[in-house]
Amino acid sequence: MPLRADARANRTALLESAARLFTEHGPDVALEAIARDAGVSIATLYRHFPSREALVARTYGAEITALGEVDLSEGTAADALVRWLDRFVEYARTKRALGDLVHALPEGSSPPAREVIVDALDRILAAGSRDGSLRADHDAQDVLALLAGLWTLPDGPAWPGRAQRLARFVVDGLATPG
Amino acid sequence: MPLRADARANRTALLESAARLFTEHGPDVALEAIARDAGVSIATLYRHFPSREALVARTYGAEITALGEVDLSEGTAADALVRWLDRFVEYARTKRALGDLVHALPEGSSPPAREVIVDALDRILAAGSRDGSLRADHDAQDVLALLAGLWTLPDGPAWPGRAQRLARFVVDGLATPG
Repeated sequence: MPLRADARANRTALLESAARLFTEHGPDVALEAIARDAGVSIATLYRHFPSREALVARTYGAEITALGEVDLSEGTAADALVRWLDRFVEYARTKRALGDLVHALPEGSSPPAREVIVDALDRILAAGSRDGSLRADHDAQDVLALLAGLWTLPDGPAWPGRAQRLARFVVDGLATPG
Repeated sequence: MPLRADARANRTALLESAARLFTEHGPDVALEAIARDAGVSIATLYRHFPSREALVARTYGAEITALGEVDLSEGTAADALVRWLDRFVEYARTKRALGDLVHALPEGSSPPAREVIVDALDRILAAGSRDGSLRADHDAQDVLALLAGLWTLPDGPAWPGRAQRLARFVVDGLATPG
């Protein structure tokens, strides 16, 4: 395997471990634990991400980038919305866990979240109008307003369940009957 | 008409005018304009509310108190929810307009908003379970999370329409079919 692919695999593994461990343990989790979880040395971690801030920025950026990937190839647009909302809940959870570290990131260090999100929702809603699986009378801003509760639900073990219920409520309300 | 009833009518008129003018023109609206709108002199306004802060506190407090009044006498619990949400949207609009003035109020100067709101929603949802007009699988915290978007919608002339759509979406999702 050429080194390049190897390095890419390490980087991907590091970002996945970082997202999970930041979400579970908060922004102060030991970088050594992230390296260990990804199966690489701490030196390899630092080669890819020279600082905690760099790792946070790329972890957060990867979550946003994932939100921009709308998969309309399987099922209806309503199905795509279900999948996208699952990812959005994950994004919200990670962002909440990163807390102040995200707000302290220098401007431009991650993709513009709101634009990526609105663009993705626009595409899903447009597809839903075309295939008839989603009501056509709501736009991306309506959906974003309905999801705002994700930032207000109290932290704690009940958060993921509450967040899933909220996302499900939004899908049920947007889906056309039948 | 005894003076007492007269004074009470003036006070009610002042609070109604204050709510409307604060909402339309923001927290700095002239107290003279509020007195004029209520059909009383500025001296009468000051007799009831010795300062702008006192008037803001009572205006905001009256909005919260109104949210605690749940009218289940007419129609189904779903109908009561529609009426209550109309009032909640008005409350949100006034609170947004009052802005920092509300946050600067001394603790205890208005009823505990969250408790009043959760209590009212609990009563409506319980009535909806009893009469079958509302789904029984959502609690007050779910509904509050869904309404959180009211605080994130951008200000401006589109706000009331957007807010109504959001409230309508919540009712439609909570109402049982048929």
